[in-house]
Amino acid sequence: MKKIAILTSGGDSQGMNTAIRAVTKAAINKGMEVYGIRRGYKGMLEDQIFPLTLLDVSGIADKGGTILLSARLPEFKDPEVRAKAAANLKKYGIDGLVVIGGDGSFHGAHYLYEEHGIKTIGIPGTIDNDVAGTDYTVGYDTALNIILDAISKLKDTATSHERTYLVEVMGRNCGDLALYSAIAGGASGVMIPEAQSSIDKIAEVIKKRRAEGKLYDIIVVAEGVGNIMDIKNELAKKVDTNIRVTILGHIQRGGAPTAFDRILATRLGVRAVELIEEGKGGLMVGIQSEEVTTHKLSYAWENYSKASASDYAIANMLSL
Amino acid sequence: MKKIAILTSGGDSQGMNTAIRAVTKAAINKGMEVYGIRRGYKGMLEDQIFPLTLLDVSGIADKGGTILLSARLPEFKDPEVRAKAAANLKKYGIDGLVVIGGDGSFHGAHYLYEEHGIKTIGIPGTIDNDVAGTDYTVGYDTALNIILDAISKLKDTATSHERTYLVEVMGRNCGDLALYSAIAGGASGVMIPEAQSSIDKIAEVIKKRRAEGKLYDIIVVAEGVGNIMDIKNELAKKVDTNIRVTILGHIQRGGAPTAFDRILATRLGVRAVELIEEGKGGLMVGIQSEEVTTHKLSYAWENYSKASASDYAIANMLSL
Amino acid sequence: MKKIAILTSGGDSQGMNTAIRAVTKAAINKGMEVYGIRRGYKGMLEDQIFPLTLLDVSGIADKGGTILLSARLPEFKDPEVRAKAAANLKKYGIDGLVVIGGDGSFHGAHYLYEEHGIKTIGIPGTIDNDVAGTDYTVGYDTALNIILDAISKLKDTATSHERTYLVEVMGRNCGDLALYSAIAGGASGVMIPEAQSSIDKIAEVIKKRRAEGKLYDIIVVAEGVGNIMDIKNELAKKVDTNIRVTILGHIQRGGAPTAFDRILATRLGVRAVELIEEGKGGLMVGIQSEEVTTHKLSYAWENYSKASASDYAIANMLSL
Amino acid sequence: MKKIAILTSGGDSQGMNTAIRAVTKAAINKGMEVYGIRRGYKGMLEDQIFPLTLLDVSGIADKGGTILLSARLPEFKDPEVRAKAAANLKKYGIDGLVVIGGDGSFHGAHYLYEEHGIKTIGIPGTIDNDVAGTDYTVGYDTALNIILDAISKLKDTATSHERTYLVEVMGRNCGDLALYSAIAGGASGVMIPEAQSSIDKIAEVIKKRRAEGKLYDIIVVAEGVGNIMDIKNELAKKVDTNIRVTILGHIQRGGAPTAFDRILATRLGVRAVELIEEGKGGLMVGIQSEEVTTHKLSYAWENYSKASASDYAIANMLSL
Repeated sequence: MKKIAILTSGGDSQGMNTAIRAVTKAAINKGMEVYGIRRGYKGMLEDQIFPLTLLDVSGIADKGGTILLSARLPEFKDPEVRAKAAANLKKYGIDGLVVIGGDGSFHGAHYLYEEHGIKTIGIPGTIDNDVAGTDYTVGYDTALNIILDAISKLKDTATSHERTYLVEVMGRNCGDLALYSAIAGGASGVMIPEAQSSIDKIAEVIKKRRAEGKLYDIIVVAEGVGNIMDIKNELAKKVDTNIRVTILGHIQRGGAPTAFDRILATRLGVRAVELIEEGKGGLMVGIQSEEVTTHKLSYAWENYSKASASDYAIANMLSL
Repeated sequence: MKKIAILTSGGDSQGMNTAIRAVTKAAINKGMEVYGIRRGYKGMLEDQIFPLTLLDVSGIADKGGTILLSARLPEFKDPEVRAKAAANLKKYGIDGLVVIGGDGSFHGAHYLYEEHGIKTIGIPGTIDNDVAGTDYTVGYDTALNIILDAISKLKDTATSHERTYLVEVMGRNCGDLALYSAIAGGASGVMIPEAQSSIDKIAEVIKKRRAEGKLYDIIVVAEGVGNIMDIKNELAKKVDTNIRVTILGHIQRGGAPTAFDRILATRLGVRAVELIEEGKGGLMVGIQSEEVTTHKLSYAWENYSKASASDYAIANMLSL
Repeated sequence: MKKIAILTSGGDSQGMNTAIRAVTKAAINKGMEVYGIRRGYKGMLEDQIFPLTLLDVSGIADKGGTILLSARLPEFKDPEVRAKAAANLKKYGIDGLVVIGGDGSFHGAHYLYEEHGIKTIGIPGTIDNDVAGTDYTVGYDTALNIILDAISKLKDTATSHERTYLVEVMGRNCGDLALYSAIAGGASGVMIPEAQSSIDKIAEVIKKRRAEGKLYDIIVVAEGVGNIMDIKNELAKKVDTNIRVTILGHIQRGGAPTAFDRILATRLGVRAVELIEEGKGGLMVGIQSEEVTTHKLSYAWENYSKASASDYAIANMLSL
Repeated sequence: MKKIAILTSGGDSQGMNTAIRAVTKAAINKGMEVYGIRRGYKGMLEDQIFPLTLLDVSGIADKGGTILLSARLPEFKDPEVRAKAAANLKKYGIDGLVVIGGDGSFHGAHYLYEEHGIKTIGIPGTIDNDVAGTDYTVGYDTALNIILDAISKLKDTATSHERTYLVEVMGRNCGDLALYSAIAGGASGVMIPEAQSSIDKIAEVIKKRRAEGKLYDIIVVAEGVGNIMDIKNELAKKVDTNIRVTILGHIQRGGAPTAFDRILATRLGVRAVELIEEGKGGLMVGIQSEEVTTHKLSYAWENYSKASASDYAIANMLSL
C-alpha cells in the first residue's frame, strides 16, 4: 500500500485546508495511507509526522489557514538538512509527498525528488498569484474578494469626505492582486511592480475626475512598488485633494476560501494524488486554460510571467 | 460618430451592472455615443431609450441587479414586433446593440442582426452557466458563492440537530451551480439534471457517514431534477435521519458581484465594444480557456454542453 | 470543589457556542469543574456527560451551532424521566446546571430545581426573541442580520424585474424578526402574529409606491401569520404587480454570531456561573435595559410580551 | 408648514444614511418640508442647501457613508461664522435642524440654538461610541462587527504561523471598540485608554497560553493608547513569539450598517422629528436602557463616561 504525506509551507493562503482535505480523501479513496506533517519542512526535519484520517479533514474545506501549520526553514537549502528530513519520511515508508505552497516551497520539493527520489508534487498555494505553470494559485481569488470588500467600505467614507485613498495590497513581485482589484473595484488608478506607473498620470486622472464632479478616488498600490508614504507625499504635491493611506495587511490572508479557490484546490489535490499513484514525482500541478496541467517543479520559478498588458490597459481606460 | 445601445434581458444576474459600466465607459472612451434601453426588448419596442452618460454608470460596478431593468417579451418572436423595435433604434441613428442576457435573449439579438443589420453583440449574463460559447456566464460565480454561504450556515444547524438537509439550488437544465457548490461545500450528495442520480446511492452515503460518526449531511439538488418534496419523501423511506428541505430561491440572484464576475463582465464588455467598432455584429462574446472568444450568436443554443463528468466523479468521490 | 454541567436544548441559535465558552472559562477560572452534556435533556437521561476543558472551548466563540448538539425530548415532561436524568448528574457530583435554550427548555430546568434541587440557571438562546425576562435572546441579532442580507439581495432582483416579494421569516408567536427586519430593511409592509395585518393596507401601500415611481416592494411576513401562499393569492387579487414568495428557512439559524450576540452570550454566561457560585438556582438570566438581570425560570413563559406598538407604527410610517 | 434641514458632520459612520432617511420620511409624513445640507456646517455657511424628497432617500437605508457628505469647519467656533450660516437657514424659512455627528458637531448645534433659536436636535453618529447621553452611537455596532470579521481572518493566519497579532482599532479616548471586540473576538489581551494596561500582564497571558498549547494570540489595542510600534517593541522584549502589527484603519468606517445601527438610526431619526414638531430644540436624542431619551446637547460632552470596569474584568478573565 502506498503511503503519502502532505505539508503546507511558506505564507499560508485560503484554500490550503481544502487542498489538504482533497488530497487526503482522494488518497484514502484509492487505498493509500496518508500522513500529515506539521510546520512544513521544519516539521519534516523534526519528525512532526502523524497519520491523517478522514475525520481529521472533515469540515475543513471552508476554513482559512492550514490545519498543518506552516513555517519557513531557510536551512532547507542545505543538502544535509534535506537528507535528514528525507530520512524521516523513509522511516515511515512514505514515498509520495504533496507540498502546498509557493515557488520557494517548490524548490525544496524539487530537490527532495532529485536527490532522494521522493515523489513530490507541488500544489501552488499563495495569495500572490506569482507561480508560473498555473493561471491561478490557491488563495488568490479569496484575497481578491477581500480586497474588493475593503475597497467598497473605503469608497463609502472616501465619498463622504471627498478623499483620495491609496490602498496598499499584497504583491511584492506580482501586481495581479492590485491590477484586478483595481479593475473590479472601479479604482481610479493602479500601481504595480511590472509596469512603469506614473504618479503624474494618476494625478491627471484625479483632476479630471474631480472636474467631472466625482467625489472620491481609490488608487490601488501593490506593496512591491515602493514605500506608500513616499508615494502619498509625491502625489500630494500634484493634487489638492485630501489623501489617506490604508495598508490592508494580513486580513488578505485569512477567511473562508471562495468557491473558486475551493474548486481549484480540490481539482489540484485530486490530480496530485493521481500523479503519485501513476508513480510520478518532481512535478507541479496547475490550472491553465481551464485544464489541470502538470509541469516540472522548476517550471514554477524559471518562467517569469508579466502582468497582462491588455488588462493593464483596461484598468487605465476605465479609471476615469 | 458611432451610436450604440445597451439592454439587459431575461432573468437578471450579478455583474450585469458591471458589464453596462464597462460597455459605456469603453464606448465613450472610443468616442461613441451610448444609449440605454430600459426593460430589455420591451423597452426597445416601446421606445424607452435614453442617453447613458459616464455619471450614470459611476459606482455601479459592485451593485447587484441591473440599472436598465429587465423584462421578458415573448412577442419578440414575431418578426413584425422586431421590425418595429428595430425602427426605434434607427430613429436614433443607433447601429450597434449590446444585449446582456441568456441564450433566449440572444435569439432576439440574432434576428435583429439577420433581419435588420443591427450590429448586435451578446454578453452572456445569467447565474445558471447554461450558455454555450463561454466557460462561465456573468453572475454564475456570485451565485455559487451565495450558495456556499447558505450551505455553511445550514451545516451549523444540521450538525446541532444531526439532520440531513436537501438544498434546492437554481438550474433547470444545467447542474453547474449544484455540482460545484456540492464540491466546494463538502456536500454528501448532489443531484443534477444531466446525470442519473440515484437516491439509493445517496442513502448509502448517508448511512456510511453516520456509521463513521459524522453528524450531518448536505445534499444539493438542482431545481431541474424534479420536485424536492418528492425526493425528500423517497429518501425518507431509505434512511432514518431527520430530513429537512431548504429552497434557496431568489437570494441566489442578488448581491454584489464577486471579483471573478466583475472582471469577466468588464473584459466581455470592453470586447463587445471593440467588435462593434470593427463593424461586426450577430456575435456573442465569451471566456473560453481564459481567452475572450467570439462566436455567432446561434452558437449559444446550438451547442449543448453537458456537466463535466470528471467533476461529477470528484463530487461523488469526496462525498464520504 | 463545585461541579457544574452545561447543555443546549431546543432549536439551536448562533451564540450558543459563545455562551458555552463563557460558562466554561468563567467556571474554570473560579476553580469549578465543568461537564458538557450532549444532546440536551436526552443526553442527560442517557448519560452523555463528559468533562469540558479550556481546550474544548478554544476558538468556538465565533462558530454557529452548538458543539454540545441539541435535541428535543418531549418525555422530559414525565417526572420519572427527570428523576432518572437528575440521578445521572448526581452520580458525577454535579450540583449546578446551565441550560441554554428557549422557554420550553426552561421548563425542564425549572422542574430539575424544584424537584431535585439542582441549581439550574437558564440562558435564553433562540433566534425568535420570544422569551420574557430578557430584551434580547442569544441568536436574535444574528438572525436579524441574516434576514437583512437576504432582503438586500432580493431587492436587487426585485428592482430589476419590478416585482413584489413576500419574504417569510421565522417567528411563530413573536413577530420581532419580521418587524425589525422590515424597519431596518426598508420594507413596504410587514405582517406579524401580534397585530391585525390587513392585506388591503399592504395593497394600498404597493399602489402608492408604484404611483410614485418606485419599482419594487418587499413585504416581510412572520411564519406564524399563516400560509404564505394563501397570503400571496389574496394579495394578487388586489394589486397587479408580479408577486414572488421566498421562504428564508433554516439559513436564519446558522453562521457566525454577531458582535451583539457574542457579547450578550458572554455576559449571560459569566453571570450564570456567578449565580451558581452564590448557591442560587431555578433562575434565568437576561439583559434588560442594558443590565444583566435575573428572574425565576417560570418568568420566561408567564410574562407574555407583545411586539412594540410604537415600533410597529414606525414600520408602517416608513413603508411608503 | 414647518421646514427642517438635515446635515451630517465630522467623521462619517454607518447608519448616517439610515438616519437621514428616517428623518426625511417621518418629517414628510408629518407634513413638513425637508432640506438637505451638503458638507455639514461648511455647506450651511456656503448655502449648499436643497430640497430633499422621498425619492432622494429611497433605498439608502443600507448604504454606508452619507449622501449629504461631511466636512469639518473649525471656523464654526466663531460666532460670526455661525450667524452667517444661521442666516442662510432663515432665508429658506427653516426653523428646525437635525445634526447627525459626534459631540464636536453637537457644539455647533448647541450654539445655533442658544444664539439663533434654531431648533437643533443632535443624533449621535460616530463609530467611536464616545458620546454621553446614549448607550450606543449610530455606527458603533457596524464598526464592531467589521473588526470581528478582521480578527477572524487574522486568527486564521496567526494560527498557521503561530504568531501574536497586535490589532489597532479606532478609539482615541473611548476604548469601547477595542474592549468589546476583544470580548467578542476571543482576544488574549486588550489595551484601552481608560485603563492602565500592563504589557507585563499581556506577556504573561501569552506565555500561559503557549504553555497550554495554544498557537496564536490576538491583542486588541485602541489607537488612543499610544504608538503601536512602540508597544510591539516593548512586548517583543518580554515574549519570544513572532509578533505582527495590523492597523485596521478606515475600513472600520464603511460598509452597510448592521440591523442594530439601522434600527437605532431609525428610532432616533423619528424621535428627532417629533421633538421639532413639539417645538423643542437644543437637545440630543439617544438610546439609554433601551428607551429613546433626550438631553440638552451639552450633556454629550459634559458627562464623561468611562469604559465598563466589569466588562474590562470579563475581557481579562476570558483572555486565557
